[in-house]
Amino acid sequence: AVAAPAIAQGLPEIQWRLASSFPKSLDTIYGAAEVFQARVAAATGGKFQIRVFAGGEIVPAFSVMDAVKDGTVECGHTASYYFFGKDPAFALDTAVPFGLNAREFNAWFMHGGGKELLREFFATYNIMNFPMGNTGAQMGGWFRKEIKSVKDLDGLKFRVGGFAGKVMSKLGTVPQQIPGGDIYPSLEKGTIDAAEWVGPYDDEKLGFQKVAQFYYYPGWWEGGPSLSLYINQDKWKSLPDEYKAIVEAAAAEANVDMMAKYDAKNPDSLKRLVAGGAKLRPFPRDVMDACYKAAQEVYAETTAASPAFKKIYEHMVKFRDDQNLWHSVSEGNFDRFMQTRKR
Amino acid sequence: AVAAPAIAQGLPEIQWRLASSFPKSLDTIYGAAEVFQARVAAATGGKFQIRVFAGGEIVPAFSVMDAVKDGTVECGHTASYYFFGKDPAFALDTAVPFGLNAREFNAWFMHGGGKELLREFFATYNIMNFPMGNTGAQMGGWFRKEIKSVKDLDGLKFRVGGFAGKVMSKLGTVPQQIPGGDIYPSLEKGTIDAAEWVGPYDDEKLGFQKVAQFYYYPGWWEGGPSLSLYINQDKWKSLPDEYKAIVEAAAAEANVDMMAKYDAKNPDSLKRLVAGGAKLRPFPRDVMDACYKAAQEVYAETTAASPAFKKIYEHMVKFRDDQNLWHSVSEGNFDRFMQTRKR
Repeated sequence: AVAAPAIAQGLPEIQWRLASSFPKSLDTIYGAAEVFQARVAAATGGKFQIRVFAGGEIVPAFSVMDAVKDGTVECGHTASYYFFGKDPAFALDTAVPFGLNAREFNAWFMHGGGKELLREFFATYNIMNFPMGNTGAQMGGWFRKEIKSVKDLDGLKFRVGGFAGKVMSKLGTVPQQIPGGDIYPSLEKGTIDAAEWVGPYDDEKLGFQKVAQFYYYPGWWEGGPSLSLYINQDKWKSLPDEYKAIVEAAAAEANVDMMAKYDAKNPDSLKRLVAGGAKLRPFPRDVMDACYKAAQEVYAETTAASPAFKKIYEHMVKFRDDQNLWHSVSEGNFDRFMQTRKR
Repeated sequence: AVAAPAIAQGLPEIQWRLASSFPKSLDTIYGAAEVFQARVAAATGGKFQIRVFAGGEIVPAFSVMDAVKDGTVECGHTASYYFFGKDPAFALDTAVPFGLNAREFNAWFMHGGGKELLREFFATYNIMNFPMGNTGAQMGGWFRKEIKSVKDLDGLKFRVGGFAGKVMSKLGTVPQQIPGGDIYPSLEKGTIDAAEWVGPYDDEKLGFQKVAQFYYYPGWWEGGPSLSLYINQDKWKSLPDEYKAIVEAAAAEANVDMMAKYDAKNPDSLKRLVAGGAKLRPFPRDVMDACYKAAQEVYAETTAASPAFKKIYEHMVKFRDDQNLWHSVSEGNFDRFMQTRKR
């Protein structure tokens, strides 16, 4: 008799599609999904393949959540605050005005209780969520005129997204919804007065400094926006444990990798923008204070309207205030010294 | 004839030992190696097992580098600056005075060219290195008397490690090398005047506030110390590509996980320390300026003495200065506003 060779039970071959909400031109953001899929493929010897599609290729950019929820695609890469209209609680998975910076978001999600709260919310949409990429604090945007005090926000036509638009409309600003490609001509013609996009690396590609020279900071509505990997819950549960572990590690790696890429790329772009005529300006303190106050009004309205938002927001705020306290000590002091030292 | 069943080529079963330089009492730091091994085991269905040993269990804490180099253990988890005495270039893999913060270190390593330079250096020690954990900016330590100006550093007996000790000895400070467990009695008896350890979460365990009430910041010699996973090069090369990919992703995940854990834990410890009598003090600006100047002298000597240090240091400095520029804009401004806003 010949002994039969032992049959090693191999892991399954799986092909998934990932719908990104982002265009390939935002290579740093779009690229996080590529980093993720490459790592998953390498870790499984090519058995678990995830094909990445740019926004609009197979799913419209703002339909990624529904597509993952319904299983039209197995997974997606998006910014949860795009789905603010369905429930404002989605925004807490990305960024809200005067919220967390990138490092604080990771701390909240990974060890501060944020993961449990956000996953409880996302489960009601049949989605498993992982942080996967962060831009860091975004810029406040490009303005055709200087903002000298809070009065200058009154009547300002500003291309700015959902939550920030709500806050600023309390100060008389008129929020504008314009696709990325239309911002430049709108600024050039003066049909809008100002527009925010991302930060130096992405803004430089669109050339805004030629049509609106005042480049304001900080983008207080996006102090550390976290992007998300969405996986359909049924598809997630169907994965072998090994693949689940690989997905979780690969998403965490792509998360820190994207932040690192932006940090490495932004300084040179900033220098070129300033050399090309951009005038850097901080928002005046009275503008920041007024926006902060207006944000509290919007938060009062939003917590009254959405129980899910209220539960997660109040938890985040307590965590954030503790982080602000701790980071104002050694971390903040070290950074400030390094940024202002005499050379 | 009976067709033989196809034999799926399974991945190998591997057992490695990881020598940590850290005691289990530093649970956040030691724990990063546990997070790493758990992820590797889960991602391989338990086939790749890495057993973690605390400092001294199988390898003395400060012999981890040699043990990995020689293959006594397959891998280790350590702080490269412990091996500063062999070549000061090791310190650049962890932290140097007035160097990078945690986020900047990741950016430099992952996308700024740091990885290539550091791996070229580590290859000469037969080691493959990965960042695996960061404490964030450490505290400046516990002082029995207030430091009111740079003159107060003269003659001060300060328990502080290698590079910082060299810098401060230029200002008259007498650096002391004392194991963690002996710091408390030395401060109590007054055989030393001051001691630095890590930050609130770890310092609280040792009770320093009872014997030295002034708690200074920032620890400018450790603005973002990065811990390292070391793997023996021959053992690394022997791994299947799948395991290499899993190791790299798991190390990256443990890296961000450890920073998140410290950020989540430090605020409560800080509050308890202050409630227990600790008096928080920033180092006066003239102290910071004098230490920065003294550090430049040490850097001039060190770059003259070590070609490897010179090459990597000069690259890091250029990267750091660009990061300081960029982070002084949106990121720093956002953080400062959040830390100082009226509530």
